[in-house]
Amino acid sequence: MSGIFITFEGVEGAGKSTQISTLASWFADVDHDVLTTREPGGAPQAEQVRQLLVTGDTDNWTDISECLLMNAARAEHLARTIRPALDAGKTVLCDRFMDSTRAYQGGAGGIDMSSLLQIEAAVVGSTIPDLTLIFDLPVAAGLERARVRGGEDRFEKKGVKYHEKVRASFLSIAKNEPERCRVINADQSPDNVSMEMVSCIEAWLAERAGS
Amino acid sequence: MSGIFITFEGVEGAGKSTQISTLASWFADVDHDVLTTREPGGAPQAEQVRQLLVTGDTDNWTDISECLLMNAARAEHLARTIRPALDAGKTVLCDRFMDSTRAYQGGAGGIDMSSLLQIEAAVVGSTIPDLTLIFDLPVAAGLERARVRGGEDRFEKKGVKYHEKVRASFLSIAKNEPERCRVINADQSPDNVSMEMVSCIEAWLAERAGS
Repeated sequence: MSGIFITFEGVEGAGKSTQISTLASWFADVDHDVLTTREPGGAPQAEQVRQLLVTGDTDNWTDISECLLMNAARAEHLARTIRPALDAGKTVLCDRFMDSTRAYQGGAGGIDMSSLLQIEAAVVGSTIPDLTLIFDLPVAAGLERARVRGGEDRFEKKGVKYHEKVRASFLSIAKNEPERCRVINADQSPDNVSMEMVSCIEAWLAERAGS
Repeated sequence: MSGIFITFEGVEGAGKSTQISTLASWFADVDHDVLTTREPGGAPQAEQVRQLLVTGDTDNWTDISECLLMNAARAEHLARTIRPALDAGKTVLCDRFMDSTRAYQGGAGGIDMSSLLQIEAAVVGSTIPDLTLIFDLPVAAGLERARVRGGEDRFEKKGVKYHEKVRASFLSIAKNEPERCRVINADQSPDNVSMEMVSCIEAWLAERAGS
């Protein structure tokens, strides 16, 4: 039996980490064996690539290199962590996945989308998320939250225009793949975001059970 | 004016480094401004990726990650080193380039060739080598030379069967792209290899001047 694969996407400061913890507890309470993980990273080799990506100046890597490094990290993450967990029937909750590459390196970074999707297909294969939650809020609010949280990384330094394109890309993915994606309003208190997320999950599980 | 871009390819222990030095001196003698470089590496970010690739166990990276990391290093190498040198009219001699990825990660590693070529196209764009010299010799002889030289790296540890596939891939590239590629017999003394290489270069430059 294969487990459930849920990815968490959205602009910086959308509160994904908090919501992943909440959802992990929720699933544990209903007796799922849960694995939470994140990208870039989630496997030893992938963490090495993460170190290259999140440090240094904003122009440290060309957009195409960034896209390739993200995908290399993802290939390791899938091979060493995600696929073994799904094969063991676990519910995998992953902070960022292929849609972040589409939004950051594609929509905002300007990598040609057909090359990007070809690389994605070569890496992801059939391990497409069963459900993707897109946490949406205005860019200014998100960057302010990220700033207050501190530990600003290379991507957070890229400026408002870049992040506006990221946000627009996520919303466009949600629109184009309504079966897989749900948009969650992240511009409210964490508790309210959690309530909206859990209702969404309950509805999705019910649909899934019915289909 | 754009410079000349020549790549050196072949199995381990084919003597490419020695021959690059020889050809660099030869070109300098006929008043070319020469840059010699190598892959993976050749730019600061690319060297960081190289470190990930050449160290550790043979199964440290999945084949697809290896392919993506090589291409990420190549994108940096092109952007920071190769294209600026060619734009400045230099003759660029590069130890390994896109054909090594085709031969190692494609032919020997088993990455689907259409994905591999799509990634290659996204990275290399129009910066295809003007000439590719493929230094060919039996795998056993090459690995023995590499062993004697010492400093055996992750790729040299992959075994004879793997390297047989690499060699066959290089020869097949040469056969399929005779305009761009020349095979040099590397199973002879370094001096004789150099003589064969220089004759080949003279003929190629004459052809190029005539066309």
